[in-house]
Amino acid sequence: MTLPTSGAVLLLIDLQQAIDHPSWGTRNNPHAEKNVRRLLDWWRAEDWPVWHVRHDSTDPDSHYRPDRPTHAFKPETAPLPGETVIAKRTNSAFVGTDLEARLRAAGSDGQPPPLVVVGVITNNSVEATVRMAGNLGFETYLVEDACFTFGRKDWHGRDVSADQVHALSLANLDGEYCRVTTTAAVLDEPVSQ
Amino acid sequence: MTLPTSGAVLLLIDLQQAIDHPSWGTRNNPHAEKNVRRLLDWWRAEDWPVWHVRHDSTDPDSHYRPDRPTHAFKPETAPLPGETVIAKRTNSAFVGTDLEARLRAAGSDGQPPPLVVVGVITNNSVEATVRMAGNLGFETYLVEDACFTFGRKDWHGRDVSADQVHALSLANLDGEYCRVTTTAAVLDEPVSQ
Repeated sequence: MTLPTSGAVLLLIDLQQAIDHPSWGTRNNPHAEKNVRRLLDWWRAEDWPVWHVRHDSTDPDSHYRPDRPTHAFKPETAPLPGETVIAKRTNSAFVGTDLEARLRAAGSDGQPPPLVVVGVITNNSVEATVRMAGNLGFETYLVEDACFTFGRKDWHGRDVSADQVHALSLANLDGEYCRVTTTAAVLDEPVSQ
Repeated sequence: MTLPTSGAVLLLIDLQQAIDHPSWGTRNNPHAEKNVRRLLDWWRAEDWPVWHVRHDSTDPDSHYRPDRPTHAFKPETAPLPGETVIAKRTNSAFVGTDLEARLRAAGSDGQPPPLVVVGVITNNSVEATVRMAGNLGFETYLVEDACFTFGRKDWHGRDVSADQVHALSLANLDGEYCRVTTTAAVLDEPVSQ
């Protein structure tokens, strides 16, 4: 596959302590945070742009409300001083924010940088953001082992596991809105067989 | 549930002959077009706004390309003379179109009308449009028996039926981006038990 080029933006979505609350249920990808951290370490070493999207919920019951302690970033992937933080109130990081303008301004020769998306949850804020990124014309990559989701019931009340929810979301997105990739592919690491 | 109020916009998405091509595979909701037509008849009788979104694909292989005969609207739900047609090139009907501006202009007292969404396919253009509608703050309803989708493989290559794809898409959308409803509920018909 075509890997993102030098200078891509690493976009971290909603990686706040709220996502660790047990009320979410059973998640997949237990190593997602480690993978995000590996990508972060690489991006920081290369001095490429790292943009953290923070969810400021307006829902009275959300653990993402700014007045809750769980609104804080997860420590392992928290912004360093000087890194960009983009606050949002809806699912998509493009709505009510300057993300689109930032991306267009960040490019060279009128070409915005590629976008490499990680974070939570795959089928909600990540998917809403990736769908808009692709539709707005940005070259977008979604790192499937650096995001995760939770099991849920479908519209008929049937249980769908976190892995099934994640895998259908990725299938809906790949080729249509983005390219789905892996941490190892982005870091150009040899893959053990 | 709260039904859309008088004067809501009926938004028909991508109901073109391209969607009948056998290459799509096995669909669900065989009565979806009949339900769209029932809603259309109601909207026309009430003289409420009916907006048809038309997909003008730029993909060389798509049956939705403007130079293909299958680009034409499906006859049973095609626009009448004078009805609004909104052309789009991406999945979301809000990207590269004046849909958002039209909705904001259509309201009274600065309040845009509710949006009632039908069409195809549930987990692609319908879902991309509904996610943006909700995130942009529009009161949005998705009529679950007036849209449909197709079976597909998930990211792990597992078969997922059209009904399962549809039902997970609806579950992801309801309460978060829109309210999922039915044709009978919108038309306020008695439901047989």
